[in-house]
Amino acid sequence: MSESAHCDILPDLQNSNDVRNIPLHRVGVEDVLFPLRVQQKEGRPINTQANVDLYANLPADKKGVNMSRFVESLMDYHNDILNVKMLRDIVSTLKKRMESEDAFIRFNFIYFLDKQAPVSKKIAPEGVPVSVVGFLDADDNFHRSVRFYVFAQTLCPCSKEISKYGAHNQRAKIRVDLYPSNMKHLEWFEDVIPLIEAQASVATYPLLKRPDEKWVTEKAYDNPKFVEDVARDVGGLFNEWLEGGRILGFGVKVVSYESIHNHQAVAYYNNGTPPFKG
Amino acid sequence: MSESAHCDILPDLQNSNDVRNIPLHRVGVEDVLFPLRVQQKEGRPINTQANVDLYANLPADKKGVNMSRFVESLMDYHNDILNVKMLRDIVSTLKKRMESEDAFIRFNFIYFLDKQAPVSKKIAPEGVPVSVVGFLDADDNFHRSVRFYVFAQTLCPCSKEISKYGAHNQRAKIRVDLYPSNMKHLEWFEDVIPLIEAQASVATYPLLKRPDEKWVTEKAYDNPKFVEDVARDVGGLFNEWLEGGRILGFGVKVVSYESIHNHQAVAYYNNGTPPFKG
Amino acid sequence: MSESAHCDILPDLQNSNDVRNIPLHRVGVEDVLFPLRVQQKEGRPINTQANVDLYANLPADKKGVNMSRFVESLMDYHNDILNVKMLRDIVSTLKKRMESEDAFIRFNFIYFLDKQAPVSKKIAPEGVPVSVVGFLDADDNFHRSVRFYVFAQTLCPCSKEISKYGAHNQRAKIRVDLYPSNMKHLEWFEDVIPLIEAQASVATYPLLKRPDEKWVTEKAYDNPKFVEDVARDVGGLFNEWLEGGRILGFGVKVVSYESIHNHQAVAYYNNGTPPFKG
Amino acid sequence: MSESAHCDILPDLQNSNDVRNIPLHRVGVEDVLFPLRVQQKEGRPINTQANVDLYANLPADKKGVNMSRFVESLMDYHNDILNVKMLRDIVSTLKKRMESEDAFIRFNFIYFLDKQAPVSKKIAPEGVPVSVVGFLDADDNFHRSVRFYVFAQTLCPCSKEISKYGAHNQRAKIRVDLYPSNMKHLEWFEDVIPLIEAQASVATYPLLKRPDEKWVTEKAYDNPKFVEDVARDVGGLFNEWLEGGRILGFGVKVVSYESIHNHQAVAYYNNGTPPFKG
Repeated sequence: MSESAHCDILPDLQNSNDVRNIPLHRVGVEDVLFPLRVQQKEGRPINTQANVDLYANLPADKKGVNMSRFVESLMDYHNDILNVKMLRDIVSTLKKRMESEDAFIRFNFIYFLDKQAPVSKKIAPEGVPVSVVGFLDADDNFHRSVRFYVFAQTLCPCSKEISKYGAHNQRAKIRVDLYPSNMKHLEWFEDVIPLIEAQASVATYPLLKRPDEKWVTEKAYDNPKFVEDVARDVGGLFNEWLEGGRILGFGVKVVSYESIHNHQAVAYYNNGTPPFKG
Repeated sequence: MSESAHCDILPDLQNSNDVRNIPLHRVGVEDVLFPLRVQQKEGRPINTQANVDLYANLPADKKGVNMSRFVESLMDYHNDILNVKMLRDIVSTLKKRMESEDAFIRFNFIYFLDKQAPVSKKIAPEGVPVSVVGFLDADDNFHRSVRFYVFAQTLCPCSKEISKYGAHNQRAKIRVDLYPSNMKHLEWFEDVIPLIEAQASVATYPLLKRPDEKWVTEKAYDNPKFVEDVARDVGGLFNEWLEGGRILGFGVKVVSYESIHNHQAVAYYNNGTPPFKG
Repeated sequence: MSESAHCDILPDLQNSNDVRNIPLHRVGVEDVLFPLRVQQKEGRPINTQANVDLYANLPADKKGVNMSRFVESLMDYHNDILNVKMLRDIVSTLKKRMESEDAFIRFNFIYFLDKQAPVSKKIAPEGVPVSVVGFLDADDNFHRSVRFYVFAQTLCPCSKEISKYGAHNQRAKIRVDLYPSNMKHLEWFEDVIPLIEAQASVATYPLLKRPDEKWVTEKAYDNPKFVEDVARDVGGLFNEWLEGGRILGFGVKVVSYESIHNHQAVAYYNNGTPPFKG
Repeated sequence: MSESAHCDILPDLQNSNDVRNIPLHRVGVEDVLFPLRVQQKEGRPINTQANVDLYANLPADKKGVNMSRFVESLMDYHNDILNVKMLRDIVSTLKKRMESEDAFIRFNFIYFLDKQAPVSKKIAPEGVPVSVVGFLDADDNFHRSVRFYVFAQTLCPCSKEISKYGAHNQRAKIRVDLYPSNMKHLEWFEDVIPLIEAQASVATYPLLKRPDEKWVTEKAYDNPKFVEDVARDVGGLFNEWLEGGRILGFGVKVVSYESIHNHQAVAYYNNGTPPFKG
């Protein structure tokens, strides 16, 4: 039986009036699991398993949003491939379906990059958590952002400097938010992720044979970095993008899972003006 | 440069002797991200993003395992599709490569099932977390197990019984471990998951229109279940499989995220004899 | 041996110059476990187990912060009781020790409130996660904020309206950030938490006997609320505080762990102007 | 109004008959937050914030357990101090109240130990997650177990051996389950935790000044350990306890958060015969 027939029978509470005079800037659903196809730089699109958040604003006079329409809008794109056009389309669809002033979607998924070990040249895929956001504002302007969680190694300059031998090192997480100005094409993750990774002491690799492990150990020792250094070097890299107009703003957070403590060392850096809260 | 050339130069510490006389039953890697293709009941294989654990035993006289070989073994199956044959092959490969007495692999991933809403008939994919385990023991016997995390709703019989109207209900998680006897074919997730789900008060659905929401609300109210009931009903279902020889053992854990408390109500039930610790 | 003696021998890398011209607005440590005593409204201070974050800014010309001084500053307050005076003191100490322009501390801990069941009157403690933040800015102005995670139940108005009987309900989390104007006294958690909780369909209780369970079931059924309603009612409550000057700004996020879906329904509302990013 | 008066009015569903002939070995509540006082080796008891699990068995003929009695039993011990006597009492109370054949309680909390830096001698508290379990079986025999999560550093022997300089190292987690034979006294955490920690390459410390950081860096470099080594050395330590009859069984799991990979290296070892499933 169609939904509209039932509408005559079933009251639509969400669509009724609200008198509290409080507009909500963001209402929606979070953690919707959805199979999402993503365009790679080369080769066929890959399938990912996205965790999706969808929001719309709710004007002061309306009681609630029709939550099922978020999931329906997502389902309309079941077979599409994630790229900027699809992002634009989906927030546009969302805005119409939700009868709202704006619409927001966030896709969180793992992107696999082939990682080649430095000496043995053996290749294995490394999974990088990323997020892609699309937002259509009240003036129908489209905005987007992308987030990367790049894992790498930091080796402590102080520890190296003061010790007879050795230097403590550890896994670190570099979280980068970019607000690109290009509304036509997504950045290729294959291009951006290595740039971020290169700012750490050395990258991590899923597959390392002994010659690779030697290379990685010595490279890190030759390239000690505080979390402050990583934040600055990633910052410097994206400051150039900002000056070149490639992005409108960005944020960096570096977290080092210190091997000498049971707590984390962290450093933050932001620059530019994100056009929306992502 | 090939790894073997370097072996002449680089000492192989893991392969040296150990004198502590302590065998380790399980050594390996955990949380390796890996793109895995999985056979569906109908249609083409789907791509998932698996989180993989690989282990082998370590005899008392050997100092360590060669950890990179775990990841290499996994990489050999980069293009394969997960089914029982592939599982058998991969633990066999692992056992040879690790030069161990046994080998164990666990794939954790999200499996998508199309879920059809009960009245509107609208379809949307629902992601179900599953795990598939393969184990080749010291006698070269192959064993396997599979785990499901099925989310559904429980509605409280007591609350319904004693109240003038309403009944508290909540999201619940039904975790099932099966140790199948069939070493040729995986169970189709499409067959097993609905059976488990049917033991709750009502299933969850990613997409519900108002007529569906009415149906789901009334169905749950008609079908109140304590966590004890769900554990028993899932238990009863799989006791039949056990008696029929379809499985060698199983375990159930039901967790209800009680809406009247900020803690969980739980119930456990096991039966049969798992042939290995999975 | 004292640290200063070693300073003559050990280079102080963090204190050297940096030429990248990138100031970092926040550098520090996160997830430091610390036993913290907290003032209750009545009775003796309670001991909590706090998870602490400490930051300071890093000017462009300095290479790094001296991370150990964060933990040392925390240790100086080992025996103090958390109240506004202690918060002011600790960020002041931090700012001096770090030789920075600002200093920030965040204490995350569980606060226990005695919860009395509505009919049986039986009392049991309920643990509420809270965060307390203190910030001393570059002009030596002190700011603070406090965050609450209040768990309660929401019952769906739509489900109630359209169904012959029953109504789906679930556990919900109401996250509130307050930026108080009072720089002398902390709000008593005992006062604020019940106000927030009262905006849901009904509160959760650690201990409910059958008469209580009946009361809670019927109360929720009489008081259906969308997440939008809860966000608006919590928002309305704190809008009054804002108008009265009791707070400078606030934020609300309501998350409902829907019992009919395996995803969450959410609503956000903010108002006022937080004086810092907390 | 008293609960007993209402019992006459309110049906007691959990106490009714069940005909499915399925006994459940474990039914109860999980994640109950509870303020717990714990006896220290020296000094006054400390307050912790425990996360508590309570279970009882459910015989085949009974429909459900009375969940509120778990929390009530816990509340009876609100002011008690955790030691073996209290553990014995509480499972005994639980067994009577639940009218069950057995009763099980698990307290998960953070235990703080003062950690002294090796050179500067500065002291700061380090939080160690622990679990304490008590179990009263169908024959009224009392059993107990205790779990520790000790964080420390592992430095890779292979990396050290093959590299010109440096050696990758990382934070590691050593999880130990002990099944003590002593039914009178808890082990002092202050005694056990340092023994476990000493099996890693070096301990972690909350507070390290530069001379300490040098000491820790060099100590780790002098003491390289694979996860296999740590598992064996912890295993060897507790094998002595087992032979001496101090414990009935134990289990070890070592997890190394490898700084060269974005996955973990792990090793497991068990010995003896745990008298119950904890």
